[in-house]
Amino acid sequence: MEQVERIGISLDKKLLTGFDKLIAKKGYKNRSEAIRDLIREQLSRDKESDPKATAIAAVCMVYDHHATQLMQKLTHLQHSHLLQTITSLHIHLDKHNCMEIIILKGKVGEINSTAEKILSTKGVKLGRINLISTEAGSHS
Amino acid sequence: MEQVERIGISLDKKLLTGFDKLIAKKGYKNRSEAIRDLIREQLSRDKESDPKATAIAAVCMVYDHHATQLMQKLTHLQHSHLLQTITSLHIHLDKHNCMEIIILKGKVGEINSTAEKILSTKGVKLGRINLISTEAGSHS
Amino acid sequence: MEQVERIGISLDKKLLTGFDKLIAKKGYKNRSEAIRDLIREQLSRDKESDPKATAIAAVCMVYDHHATQLMQKLTHLQHSHLLQTITSLHIHLDKHNCMEIIILKGKVGEINSTAEKILSTKGVKLGRINLISTEAGSHS
Amino acid sequence: MEQVERIGISLDKKLLTGFDKLIAKKGYKNRSEAIRDLIREQLSRDKESDPKATAIAAVCMVYDHHATQLMQKLTHLQHSHLLQTITSLHIHLDKHNCMEIIILKGKVGEINSTAEKILSTKGVKLGRINLISTEAGSHS
Repeated sequence: MEQVERIGISLDKKLLTGFDKLIAKKGYKNRSEAIRDLIREQLSRDKESDPKATAIAAVCMVYDHHATQLMQKLTHLQHSHLLQTITSLHIHLDKHNCMEIIILKGKVGEINSTAEKILSTKGVKLGRINLISTEAGSHS
Repeated sequence: MEQVERIGISLDKKLLTGFDKLIAKKGYKNRSEAIRDLIREQLSRDKESDPKATAIAAVCMVYDHHATQLMQKLTHLQHSHLLQTITSLHIHLDKHNCMEIIILKGKVGEINSTAEKILSTKGVKLGRINLISTEAGSHS
Repeated sequence: MEQVERIGISLDKKLLTGFDKLIAKKGYKNRSEAIRDLIREQLSRDKESDPKATAIAAVCMVYDHHATQLMQKLTHLQHSHLLQTITSLHIHLDKHNCMEIIILKGKVGEINSTAEKILSTKGVKLGRINLISTEAGSHS
Repeated sequence: MEQVERIGISLDKKLLTGFDKLIAKKGYKNRSEAIRDLIREQLSRDKESDPKATAIAAVCMVYDHHATQLMQKLTHLQHSHLLQTITSLHIHLDKHNCMEIIILKGKVGEINSTAEKILSTKGVKLGRINLISTEAGSHS
């Protein structure tokens, strides 16, 4: 079982009032939850700048389903020894366009260079790399 | 069938050399493909700042699967009249953590406020909102 | 004099350890200071998405000093009734390039549209818009 | 004198129409200028991820002018052998707050770690690091 700690934070009334309004707007139930999310976000961003850290990435792309090169690159990727393709999701958007989301696990540097190769393939129109480090506070 | 146009761009040799090196590193086969991607990315970012534009969003989150409130919010979301939930993908990461990706379609403003409500739910540890406007150049 | 409040935050030991390591690396002296900065940053980002909020912006650009159109636009800007140009700083980088930083005050929407017009001027090579909302917690 | 090259780009009509509308809104006079800016921006972002590349940075911060520690850190910084402080600009915002912009030149890795130390100082409320690589296409 996780050990919970309690820390005290001092901040002036005006800053606290602004924060309380913002988290109410976002739908947070309490301050601890909102501050834990801020801390996790910062830890995750810090890991993302370290090419050797391990991360999960959701690579989202919109592509033309006639782009046959992409299929070959993606198949090739799934036999890579450096990255683990956990799963992928395919969504039919319209007559021309598909969205594909690939969940990768591996080193940040390797994920970024692989994702850039995917996103530069002819037929891939828009892409986003979502690195999510799950190391810090993964059980929290 | 799509009508293809050809435009001429002037730029100095040094800038062109730098660009050629970068796109080779990223894996692009030719300049047109790389410049089309830059243009699409800029159009997509522009749409994302307009709350009334229509977009597809992939909302990625890591959460503790004991977070029962989240399940309720997500179920509630799927009966919303303002946003269309196209699909969702669930990945079991480890004993404690799941990744969930929800594909939403709707107005940018509505997507952002809904996504913030999801990401602020107790148990959701990390979240990313990927807005991808498919309006401009959707068939391109 | 500012009224200081003290709030308690609960978080699990692992998340706290990760946070303590990160803030030590960044050079923070204590947790309160680091969390106040996270909160201010989030409040500022929230304001930046509201076109009617008031903000200070530092618009940084690198440009070719032969770009005479820029000078005209900047002069024109300083007589605008919608934005207040607080100050500007000019740095001579090399034979060809200057950096100019302009500090603007006004509504977020107005700042963004003006800054985009400046950055699109012929001769301006690189630009960054730094919106800094000083409303929330400005005296904190 | 700079050697200007002319390249041809093919793209479909719909994408081109969207691009033309966007650049008109932003105030660009022609497509070449807009595409050169997209390319420079991408080259600059690429350099920023390389800790050993040389860059210019404008570090913007809002701070309480009673923060005496900051003054010491900034003075110390100006005697650093790793970074060159080109100039700094001080703006009096209100009774409590100042904005300070420091222009640094050096390696990206060194700039980031120094800037983080500055921004974590007690009294610094908001900060932004603007890395601008001027290596690629600096004379363009």
